[in-house]
Amino acid sequence: MRCRKCGKKAVINMRQHRLSLCKQHFLEWLPNHILRFIKKYEMFSEHDRILVAVSGGKDSLALWDILLKLGLHTEGLYINLGINAETAYSNHSMDFAQKFADQRNLKLHIADIKRDYGESIPEISIRTRRGRDKPCSLCGLIKRYMMNRFALNGQYDVLVTAHNLDDEAAILLANTLDWSLEFLARGEPVLPSKPGFLKKVKPFFRTYEREAAAYAILRNIEYMRDECPFSIDSKQLYYKKYLNEWEEKQPGTKLRFYLKYLNAIAQGAFPARQELAQQLAQQRCPQCGQPTNTGSLCAFCKLFDTNI
Amino acid sequence: MRCRKCGKKAVINMRQHRLSLCKQHFLEWLPNHILRFIKKYEMFSEHDRILVAVSGGKDSLALWDILLKLGLHTEGLYINLGINAETAYSNHSMDFAQKFADQRNLKLHIADIKRDYGESIPEISIRTRRGRDKPCSLCGLIKRYMMNRFALNGQYDVLVTAHNLDDEAAILLANTLDWSLEFLARGEPVLPSKPGFLKKVKPFFRTYEREAAAYAILRNIEYMRDECPFSIDSKQLYYKKYLNEWEEKQPGTKLRFYLKYLNAIAQGAFPARQELAQQLAQQRCPQCGQPTNTGSLCAFCKLFDTNI
Repeated sequence: MRCRKCGKKAVINMRQHRLSLCKQHFLEWLPNHILRFIKKYEMFSEHDRILVAVSGGKDSLALWDILLKLGLHTEGLYINLGINAETAYSNHSMDFAQKFADQRNLKLHIADIKRDYGESIPEISIRTRRGRDKPCSLCGLIKRYMMNRFALNGQYDVLVTAHNLDDEAAILLANTLDWSLEFLARGEPVLPSKPGFLKKVKPFFRTYEREAAAYAILRNIEYMRDECPFSIDSKQLYYKKYLNEWEEKQPGTKLRFYLKYLNAIAQGAFPARQELAQQLAQQRCPQCGQPTNTGSLCAFCKLFDTNI
Repeated sequence: MRCRKCGKKAVINMRQHRLSLCKQHFLEWLPNHILRFIKKYEMFSEHDRILVAVSGGKDSLALWDILLKLGLHTEGLYINLGINAETAYSNHSMDFAQKFADQRNLKLHIADIKRDYGESIPEISIRTRRGRDKPCSLCGLIKRYMMNRFALNGQYDVLVTAHNLDDEAAILLANTLDWSLEFLARGEPVLPSKPGFLKKVKPFFRTYEREAAAYAILRNIEYMRDECPFSIDSKQLYYKKYLNEWEEKQPGTKLRFYLKYLNAIAQGAFPARQELAQQLAQQRCPQCGQPTNTGSLCAFCKLFDTNI
């Protein structure tokens, strides 16, 4: 397998693009590829203050590295979820994020659910009905809330997450098998700002997980390799398995699935829900003032509401 | 495993309904279950002239048997597709359908693509670009066309097909992974009549394939057991495999997937396409006069157009 650009030995073959590249050309190609879609989807410009949500894993550190290379103004946000019981998963992950930031003289903010709200994810998970059997859904809710709140308070222009194509395709498959219209209406890689919500973008939405991993490894980025101990039974991993099988048989399956979905949204596939979501987000939580569509306490504050 | 109604030995366990039944009670239960949804979805009444599309397989003969049991006025339509090269698949299937009709003194109409249009499915498949590598899609088009045309000419009130839940869920999964909005807008079990199209209904849309098979066997219906020789590589069988795997892990997966999709349509998903389909169906094919949305010859007539 040879690099298409120089003929040297390739380190990666991206079958969906019919493109093999050597180390040097892959490390050039990926940032340019990302930049192309940052521009095409108007995610952000060089004037914006960008907050990057980093977990200490390969995706977020690779993405932060790329944004840096592209000369953008970024700060990082790590959310310590307190998943520390057996493997100190959260604290280890934080160390990787902190080390990455320190080595590059970048600002990393730390949010901490235990410090700020008194309980860790495992503790909330055991206590609440919502968390039982599905800590991943609880964790998603909490991260979305804390990220958005931090980014709004810090008056950033845009919040960046490193969800890759494998993540997006798996979430999309789960939401589709469940026909969750609310989620299907908001699966785009750019969610514009609206009252109470900062603009949110996913520059890795066309990047396969293995490309992000290859980039991190080839750039010698040290990152957290362990998976979250809760994720073993997660819905997302379950669906990734099938998507990998289909991708293996038909390279490009994940990319086509997600891009055709974007096209379906553009053609008005879920309009009623899109409007509804906009209307409802006008309401505010009486406790924290953040947007909600519950009609009373937002889903986050409900977790800590002792009346339940 | 015991029958829930009488405690005798059960012959079938329908995990999605948490219901085990003995032979007698299953043969009572299924027709009543079907009748309930025929009424709920206003598929047809005892006054309607019903045309049942029969293939000679378990589903269509089981359904015809049930409609008969329910005292409805039915005639059958068998379409001979001329798939006869090695196994005489089409002719064998026709024999099963004919025998079923003769034994019960029912009227079975025979349409024959070779007789009426000069070529069999394998012949058209080889000659046309559309048929190459995908005879199943070609066959679907041809059957839909011939069924609709026959039913319109015969002035029936409704056309019944025996698509079961496994069929519908597999087609839905394929169309969803492909985000085929045109198909997603018309996947409901009742398609009302509109100019050029007879009302089309699928009374087995909640019936699992194994239930239809169990019914056919327990009623001693003789049916064609071979699969169509072309279907081995079909997309539908490919997706059925995955749905079966998910169903095994979570009984009711197929039913929930399809019913939630119906719910999504009811909540306004895919509206733009629905309107578009309605507008376009006002156009007529200049050759056969049937509805088309191609702007010129309908897809069926195009197959036989020597200018292409």
